[in-house]
Amino acid sequence: MSQPTIHTFSTSFITESGAEIKEPYLAYQTWGKLNEQRNNVIVVCHALTGNSDAKEWFPGFFDASNPLKLNEYFIICPNHPGSCYGSVGPTSVNPETGKPYQAGFPVFTIRDIVRLEQRLLDELKIEGVELIIGPSMGGMIALEFTIMDDRVKNSVLIAMGKAHSAWAIGISEAQRMALYADENWNGGFYDPEQPPAKGLAAARAMAMITYRSPKNYEQRFRREVNKEKQIFQVESYLNYQGEKLVDRFDANSYDLLTKSMDSHDVSRNRDSFEEVLEAISASVLVIGIDSDRLYPTHEQKELAALIPNAEYKEISSVTGHDAFLIEFEQLNSLLSDFVGKRTKDSQNQLAHETE
Amino acid sequence: MSQPTIHTFSTSFITESGAEIKEPYLAYQTWGKLNEQRNNVIVVCHALTGNSDAKEWFPGFFDASNPLKLNEYFIICPNHPGSCYGSVGPTSVNPETGKPYQAGFPVFTIRDIVRLEQRLLDELKIEGVELIIGPSMGGMIALEFTIMDDRVKNSVLIAMGKAHSAWAIGISEAQRMALYADENWNGGFYDPEQPPAKGLAAARAMAMITYRSPKNYEQRFRREVNKEKQIFQVESYLNYQGEKLVDRFDANSYDLLTKSMDSHDVSRNRDSFEEVLEAISASVLVIGIDSDRLYPTHEQKELAALIPNAEYKEISSVTGHDAFLIEFEQLNSLLSDFVGKRTKDSQNQLAHETE
Repeated sequence: MSQPTIHTFSTSFITESGAEIKEPYLAYQTWGKLNEQRNNVIVVCHALTGNSDAKEWFPGFFDASNPLKLNEYFIICPNHPGSCYGSVGPTSVNPETGKPYQAGFPVFTIRDIVRLEQRLLDELKIEGVELIIGPSMGGMIALEFTIMDDRVKNSVLIAMGKAHSAWAIGISEAQRMALYADENWNGGFYDPEQPPAKGLAAARAMAMITYRSPKNYEQRFRREVNKEKQIFQVESYLNYQGEKLVDRFDANSYDLLTKSMDSHDVSRNRDSFEEVLEAISASVLVIGIDSDRLYPTHEQKELAALIPNAEYKEISSVTGHDAFLIEFEQLNSLLSDFVGKRTKDSQNQLAHETE
Repeated sequence: MSQPTIHTFSTSFITESGAEIKEPYLAYQTWGKLNEQRNNVIVVCHALTGNSDAKEWFPGFFDASNPLKLNEYFIICPNHPGSCYGSVGPTSVNPETGKPYQAGFPVFTIRDIVRLEQRLLDELKIEGVELIIGPSMGGMIALEFTIMDDRVKNSVLIAMGKAHSAWAIGISEAQRMALYADENWNGGFYDPEQPPAKGLAAARAMAMITYRSPKNYEQRFRREVNKEKQIFQVESYLNYQGEKLVDRFDANSYDLLTKSMDSHDVSRNRDSFEEVLEAISASVLVIGIDSDRLYPTHEQKELAALIPNAEYKEISSVTGHDAFLIEFEQLNSLLSDFVGKRTKDSQNQLAHETE
């Protein structure tokens, strides 16, 4: 991961729940140059365990096959608060105690995340967002951004819905239960040298299943045995995926960000879903993945149906939810249609505004 | 649960892996009377956390809507070895040490389970099995029974496949990882008074998700909040389901029986799937559940296609895998067709043999 820029805010941030973060800061990375009008901006929103290095985790978007002339844009990807990749979060030092927040860090709702990232755009004096794009949790953030920020002209929302469903919350909670079962968890105030590795690995293994599909697993693993370990290859794979996450992610961040996702509900303390979504003026492309078992396509279809200027498109893949990290050819082709239409309409000259 | 009968075997049992159980025994319950020919037998095979009280967990099968005249049959339901409902398992005392086996109890493969239960039928001098029926893990056992035992004339296999898939093994393993993360696990040699409750509860929560479907959860829970606990209802439900299992089930049994399921593969150390399944002479009804996310219907369709005298039928339900415990009207209707055909064919007079 490339080194992000750290932007420190001069005033505190108060979450929806009323918690105050005295010294908030965000890590972000950018590509390209801001134009004079400061409106050639693409915001990329990462998913649960992602980071600000969009070029690394979203490589296909930066590929030549992307219909957008990316060199004409200023692309920015912030690390979401609550994460552990440079932005303020549970591993940050709480200035009031001089110690890391750990489990004392508050849940940032999706809207809290958006509000702090809006402040980043404000302080960078960004006037217009030509496109915001996000998959999964990133899509939830992109959707709230589209609702909350008039600067957003075009929005691409991938593999999520209008709210985190009971199904998705249940999957979050089962993972948290595994984390809380860990002998090292200690209510989230664990020794950083002795993190709740087994619980986090179990949570990740559960997640990795929901990110894929039966057919994908069948193609990759069948009933093959890892000769050395004398366990099934799929077991070896899940053990490895668990360990890999433990090496790169903080357990409190995992706990808190799954709760951020559970907070996602565009109707919460507002009007009905219909009213909230009808008020969106941006052009929206909602993309579902036909094999997505975590956020099934009826959620994306519903979302597109409720937003006036929206269309629904589908990625066909056996991969499941994770297809957004894999099927870049299809993604860019869908983007191409979306960009083409916008250009033709001359309403939102997504691709050529800066020409 | 009604009190089961305990049948103790006079000779030891050796598992496929070579482990010897010196004093094997099985708990079972029966309903009805064995006829003179000792062949009016129905064997009911329970699922992962089930027990010998089939009337309790499979009530619809005992309902008047069952097309079989159940009072003419001798119904038997053994508790599977490795479980904790009366049959030999990890909570049993190892006669060699005088202490409970705990994690020292060997994995019983599906075939080991069948071989020990065959011995039970042998010692009860059962000559013919008119019908064997099982859902989920019970279906795996029923399938192996049908392959391994010539006494079986008719077989109803519900919501499983020819082998435990990579997908299903992965789900097992993620659950085991949660169990192993528990502070009380201690490699399976835990204090029975301090069992790995949190880990087992997390495993169960994950399982409960795979047993259901997004639509089922949406209908039941939506985003409703449990006012008292200030958590989502779906979280409260999963916490409760976890606790309930902890109260009634042994963690080592859970660990071992998930491994029993992972062993399921009718081709293992035999011929190809095609050859093994083609050799089945019994009449077979394979039932899938359209919303099953654990054992998707393509597995049941495939199974039915590979067995010569088999047909595939589907239960339509939003419930998911658990529909086998709920949609009894549909189940009995499918059984009725199956029984009717058998009777008409006069080959296997399933319903009226004893008339």
